[in-house]
Order: sequence, then C-alpha cells, then structure tokens
Amino acid sequence: MKSEIITIGDELLIGQIVDTNAAWMARELTQSGFDIAAITSVGDQSDSIVKAIDNAFERAEILLLTGGVGPTNDDITKHTLCQYFHTALEFNDEVLQNIETIFLRRNIPLNHLTRKQAYVPANCTVIQNKLGTAPILWFEKDGKVLISMPGVPFEMENAMCDEIIPRLQERFQITEYLSRSCIVTGISESALATQLAEYELELPKGFSLAYLPSLGYIRLRLSVWGEEHKVELKLQARKLKKLLGLNIVSKGAKMPEEILGGKLRKKNLTLSTAESCTGGFISHKITTVPGSSQYFEGSIISYDSLIKEELLDVDRDLIETYGVVSGEVVEQMARTVAKKLHTDCSIAVSGIMGPDGGTKENPVGTVWIATQYNDKIISNKYNVGRSRRENIERTANTAMLQLLQMLKS
Amino acid sequence: MKSEIITIGDELLIGQIVDTNAAWMARELTQSGFDIAAITSVGDQSDSIVKAIDNAFERAEILLLTGGVGPTNDDITKHTLCQYFHTALEFNDEVLQNIETIFLRRNIPLNHLTRKQAYVPANCTVIQNKLGTAPILWFEKDGKVLISMPGVPFEMENAMCDEIIPRLQERFQITEYLSRSCIVTGISESALATQLAEYELELPKGFSLAYLPSLGYIRLRLSVWGEEHKVELKLQARKLKKLLGLNIVSKGAKMPEEILGGKLRKKNLTLSTAESCTGGFISHKITTVPGSSQYFEGSIISYDSLIKEELLDVDRDLIETYGVVSGEVVEQMARTVAKKLHTDCSIAVSGIMGPDGGTKENPVGTVWIATQYNDKIISNKYNVGRSRRENIERTANTAMLQLLQMLKS
Repeated sequence: MKSEIITIGDELLIGQIVDTNAAWMARELTQSGFDIAAITSVGDQSDSIVKAIDNAFERAEILLLTGGVGPTNDDITKHTLCQYFHTALEFNDEVLQNIETIFLRRNIPLNHLTRKQAYVPANCTVIQNKLGTAPILWFEKDGKVLISMPGVPFEMENAMCDEIIPRLQERFQITEYLSRSCIVTGISESALATQLAEYELELPKGFSLAYLPSLGYIRLRLSVWGEEHKVELKLQARKLKKLLGLNIVSKGAKMPEEILGGKLRKKNLTLSTAESCTGGFISHKITTVPGSSQYFEGSIISYDSLIKEELLDVDRDLIETYGVVSGEVVEQMARTVAKKLHTDCSIAVSGIMGPDGGTKENPVGTVWIATQYNDKIISNKYNVGRSRRENIERTANTAMLQLLQMLKS
Repeated sequence: MKSEIITIGDELLIGQIVDTNAAWMARELTQSGFDIAAITSVGDQSDSIVKAIDNAFERAEILLLTGGVGPTNDDITKHTLCQYFHTALEFNDEVLQNIETIFLRRNIPLNHLTRKQAYVPANCTVIQNKLGTAPILWFEKDGKVLISMPGVPFEMENAMCDEIIPRLQERFQITEYLSRSCIVTGISESALATQLAEYELELPKGFSLAYLPSLGYIRLRLSVWGEEHKVELKLQARKLKKLLGLNIVSKGAKMPEEILGGKLRKKNLTLSTAESCTGGFISHKITTVPGSSQYFEGSIISYDSLIKEELLDVDRDLIETYGVVSGEVVEQMARTVAKKLHTDCSIAVSGIMGPDGGTKENPVGTVWIATQYNDKIISNKYNVGRSRRENIERTANTAMLQLLQMLKS
C-alpha cells in the first residue's frame, strides 16, 4: 500500500533540526506493511503544503503529515487542511477535555491560545492525542486517507503505535515486508557486486538486494513484499551467506559495536583498548551501547609517543626501529592494555589520520590494528582513506570487525 | 534564490537511515544565501526521481541531488539524469584518473564496475570528487541548475564547501549574508530569550537573532542580508556581547573542541582527560581537530571502578565514602591524569548516562566534572538529561566549556 510522509516546519528547511520523525515513521510503516513512495519536507506556508499534498496524492493512497499544529500563529496546517477539504473549524468538547486534563496534570493555567486547539475541521475523524494538546485529524477522500499529527516526536510516536498503524492496517488489507540483512567486510563494494552479479540475476521476481556501504564495511539487505515469500527468502539468504564466505561478519541489522558487545557478553569476555590515532573513538563507540560496562573496562589513549612508553610499556627501541605506526608497536600496546586492565581481549591502533603527518612509507590513512583474544594476537596494516573524520571512523569499525572475526573462529 | 534538495535511496524510505545530509545541506545553503523551498526523499526508481525533479523545478532555480550514484545496479541516478537531460554517457579520462589514484592509495585493484564510474553524461560539467569514486555532475537547463552528488556524507560535504557553494554564489550573484555568532552557556534557552526580549525588539529592520541550541550550550547568530549593514552589525554584536556578560564563552561559529584547542595552543598549554561515563568521547572530540597532537597528550578511560583505583590512584575509601559519582573522585582523577601524562590542564568526568544505573540520589543524567589548570581545580555537578547518547555529548561539551571558562579568566 503506497504511502507518503510530509513533514512541515520552517526549522526543517533551514537545517536547524534533522528530520528524525520521517525516518522513524518510515521504519515503523515499512515494518507494518506499508510502502513509502516519498518523503517531503515543506515550510509553514499554505501553498507549499497544498502542493505537497497534491503531489503525494498522485502517487499514494495514504498521507501522513506531522508538524505545524501548535497554538501559535506560525502554525497553519489545520487551516490549510480546512481549505483543502472544503470545510470549516468547529468546536470539539472532547478535545477541550483532553487539553484540560493535560494542563491540570502539568499544573499550568489554560490560556486562549491553547483553547483554540479544541477547534477542529468539521468533516474529519478526531483522534485524541493522549500526550499533548494538538489532536490527530483523520481525513478520507476518494478512498484515500490523510492523517495530520503533531511534530513533537513522542506524541507522534505514541499516536502512530497506538492508533494510526492499527487503524491503517484494518482499513487497508496489508502485505508484509520481509527482509534479511548482514554485514560484510574485507571487500570493496564493486568487487562484492561482481561476486554477486549472477546471484542477483537469478533472484526470483520481487526479490531485491541492496548494498549499503558504511565506513569499513558494507551492509547487504535482501528483501521482498508478501508473507508468502517467507520460505524462499530463507533459502535465498542461505545461498547468499554461502557465497559471502569468510567476508560475512554477522547477520542482522545491528552496528559493529552492538554485534561486538553481544558476542563479548555471550562468551563472557572483557575488553580494553589502547588507542593512538583514533583518540578514544573506539572506546566511545563501544560505550554508546547501554550495558557496555558489563564487558568494557576502559582504555589508555596515548596520543603522544612518550605516553606509549610510560603507560603502555612500549620500548623506545621498538619505536625507533619500527616506527610508532607499526605492527610491533600496536601488538605491544594491545598486550600491555589487556594486562593492566585485566581483560580477555584488547584492541590497539596507531596510524596517521591526516590531514598532516603523512610520510612516503606511511601516507595519510595508514593504520596498524592489533587485536588480542587470550593468547592469540593479530596485527594488520590498512589504508583507510584521506579525510580525517572518515579515517577515524573507518579505523574504529575495522578494528571492531577484526576482533569480531577472531571471536567468530 | 530558491533551491530544493532531493535525497535519493531506498534506505531513506524504509527508515534504515536518518537523512542527515538534507539537514546539513539546508543549513549550509541557508547560511550561504540560498532559500530552501522543499526537501524530498525518493527511492532508487527512475520515475520517482524524474517526478521529484519536475516538481522541484516548478518552484526552484537550483536543485541539489544526493545519492544513488554508486557503482552497483541499484544506483540509477546517473542513468535517470541522462534520460532527463536527453543525453548519453561518455567516457571521461579525468574521472578515471581520479578513481585510479583513490584505488592505488587504498591498494585495491580496479574492476570493471568501478571503471563504469568514469562514464558521465555528455552535456554536463564534471566536478572531481576528491574523496570518492563517484564524480559530481552539474547540469544547466533554461537558466536553472541541477547538481548530482554522492550520498556519502563527507564526500558530499567536502564537495559542497569546496566547489558547489562557491560556484553557485558566483553563478547566481547572491546578496551577501552577514552574520556574527557566539557560544553561550550556563543559561536555559527560555531564560536567555527573556533576557534578550527587549534587545530583539529594538533590532533594526532586516536584522534577526537566531537561537541554535546544542547539547550543553546555545549558539546565537545575529544576521542580516546586504553588505551595507556591516557597521550596524558590528554595533549590534557589541551590544549583545555586553548583555550576555559572563555567559558568553566565545565568539565565532566554531565548535567547543576547536575553541578549546585554539586557546590551549595560544597559551602553549597541554591537556589530558580522565573519563568514566563519557567513555572516551571528550578525548575523541578533542582529537577530531587537525593538529590536536600539539596540545593533547592522551587519556585514561576508567569505565570500571577498579581501573579508577589502579590507574588513576583514586582511594577505595574515597569511592566508598563519597561514591564513584562525586566531586572528590573526579578531582582525584583530574589530578592523577595531569600528573601521569605531564599536562598543564586536565578534565575528569564521572556520571550516570543511562538508561540504567540511576539511584534516588544520583538519577540518570547526574554527572560530576572536574577541570584543572595548573594549581587550580574546579568541580561541578550537572544534570545533563535522560537519553544516553545526548547525555554523553552534553557532558563532553559542558566539560570542555568548563575548562574554557577557567582559561578565559
């Protein structure tokens, strides 16, 4: 069932806020069997909103609007919808009751601006917004549906889950969206596409394979619409897994730090990092995962060479012989941090992230990564790119995936 | 000058990624004098892309496209643009050279799929993508412009700043946009707005003051269109600075880590961090700044309590008496890390980032921050919020600004 999302607000068009509402709605709708044809953001101007609705109704049966429904004068979605559906505002007792309950709970006196929220278009179905003062409006026209919701994320999310999606699923009899994702590393996107060219050609009708490249890995997504394809999807996913061989790191749609965290937790292992060029980014990524304190102990960030000697017991001789960006140095860093922080596993990195500091032997982007798991230690050299921020992120992902590959075997 | 943004990719429509590109572009374009009429996201289907372009050209003179330009079969933007502009692909030597350089640097062999990237539409201007293999395509039609860029954020951002915006400003003779920014901390947005209400009312015609709240600080931007307002802008900025008093941390549009880096460099000071709850994020932020190795020595990330005792010399007694989230503990952490890493300044943090781990005395969001500068040490307690990711970022910014305030005096 084709749907479209329209997010309304000047703040979107000047880039003051990122449109997380659209992504949230798109994900929930897709997983509930709705197909999103387009997402449009427009400002708080009546003609822009009308034009966006017209364009969307050309392609879709369901339109979801958020934003522009506050009590102040710059919010004009409700008036625009009255115009669009040739109707007028009328007072709604239930909406006022809902507003009064909310104000009582927050202990704020009601003012005339808020009372205006109880006026709703005459020919729509009103759905109460349990968490806010702007009601949800459901319009029907020529077998199509338009729903206007507030732009406040938790109000919109609550309304979507509790009211909108269940009503839409009942109103339109929905096809299910099935998908399988996995993470692949150690191969370029084009080499991977070449390797999978025949497999893609032979995919049954309706199946599609998407490549989603990230820094240091590629996410593959195999998908199809319709519950009847469940068995075939499983078969195709298995076939894909076989083709990917050792390059496949993990199934599912999770991030490297989540996968690594899950693996460490499952194996009851602990982790520490010794970072030079990534400056704490690996440690940061790992600790974005809630509950990471169960397996992560800490890090020694030795941005300066002297700190490598003093805190990570790297011999000055080693640095002088092999250089600070070398397998020998990162291995020593990995060993020391695991010992000092009493962990089963460790990650150590040293490299040149740029824009300066490159040499002929070690140009910007050169990085050595050591990973340790009990008695085993592996160190590899990579070239991660040229842009500083990208290099740091690619190094972090590559390092976590290198350890994950060790833990897999 | 009316512009529109079209972001292309199935991953946007299934909500797998949040469209941060659109927000980034909208902000940069607005600040460079362009007015965004709408933002549209469509999938990798030719007819959807064409329809979106048609709709956008009805309203705007400038169209910026990102995405759908990878080497794989699911990326069809380039072919769609050939159709749209009635042209065919032709081989471009310079693009191939750029691709070869990139592959050589990454030490990956070139294959036929990547070579395909060197085919570009015949009637467009090709701009080299210095950071990736997909070239930037600039089309002109009836006095309007369409630019197709890769969807990889850092490639797009680099191309926008270095090539696209300067060329657009030249092509469309943009009125100069004048602005002054500053960073304000230690005051809520609504309190700040109340404090500045009169000032805002008295601003001369055409001047506007924007509040851009970030995590841990608010950026204020005073702006006006037209070079003739240069002197008045300077006067108004001075008046604003006086009103803000001690809450103003810094002038300019830089990030806290850049301002702190600049200050340390100017005063010839060095820095280290001892982080618990931020897990290395402060260290990471500081080291995103090129050349930070000149003043940043490193960190000890003690996610576990035992590591605080062993590596940061925090007495067990201190932890048992005051708790691990306390002024006493962070002060000890700050002192030790500065001593062990031989730095003039240090930052130490300990707190509860959530979603679990909160107590009645120390609910989720509680954090203690100590900053040291030579013999002076300050520790403050904050409550940073409720969402883990936000808490980590707000803590990092607050910590850097706390040190900056110390260095100012």
